[in-house]
Amino acid sequence: MITEIAQIEIKPGSEKDFEAAIAMAQPIFKRCKGWKSFELHRSIEKPSRYRLHITWETLENHMVDFRESADFTEWRGLVGPHFASPPEVEHTNTVTRF
Amino acid sequence: MITEIAQIEIKPGSEKDFEAAIAMAQPIFKRCKGWKSFELHRSIEKPSRYRLHITWETLENHMVDFRESADFTEWRGLVGPHFASPPEVEHTNTVTRF
Repeated sequence: MITEIAQIEIKPGSEKDFEAAIAMAQPIFKRCKGWKSFELHRSIEKPSRYRLHITWETLENHMVDFRESADFTEWRGLVGPHFASPPEVEHTNTVTRF
Repeated sequence: MITEIAQIEIKPGSEKDFEAAIAMAQPIFKRCKGWKSFELHRSIEKPSRYRLHITWETLENHMVDFRESADFTEWRGLVGPHFASPPEVEHTNTVTRF
């Protein structure tokens, strides 16, 4: 399992609309191959900054199965209009948890 | 509950020693006021980059109770020698999870 971490700066004033769009996108992820879980975090220090922590079975499930699907286009159609800049996306392995 | 997100660049070659230091630090967190959970993530794209996702009951539990304690000095003594640069630390609230 891997975690996709996406840091997203939202246009100031669009935070509530962005959060509503995330709620609408829930069914998209639930039907994706290899999708496991989704968390939306909002920065306390910079309230227009959000982070998505999305877990996938494999890196390919995110980068190929999702990114090259119509579901990705639908997802970006919902949330993209609120982005102030392109998201910074990275993937991680969990080394330890306690 | 809040999440502390710390992005840490480790001196290349020190990754295994850093991970061992994290394992040694486990008892420190377990005795901290308001500490809830700890995750160590390692970047797939940049293998010398790690992220700590640490949850605390309140922001003050991290910034005051922990940061101003001898436990923080002990923690930094264990992991600090492996840092390539000062960590970037931010706090978040979880907006949604599914």
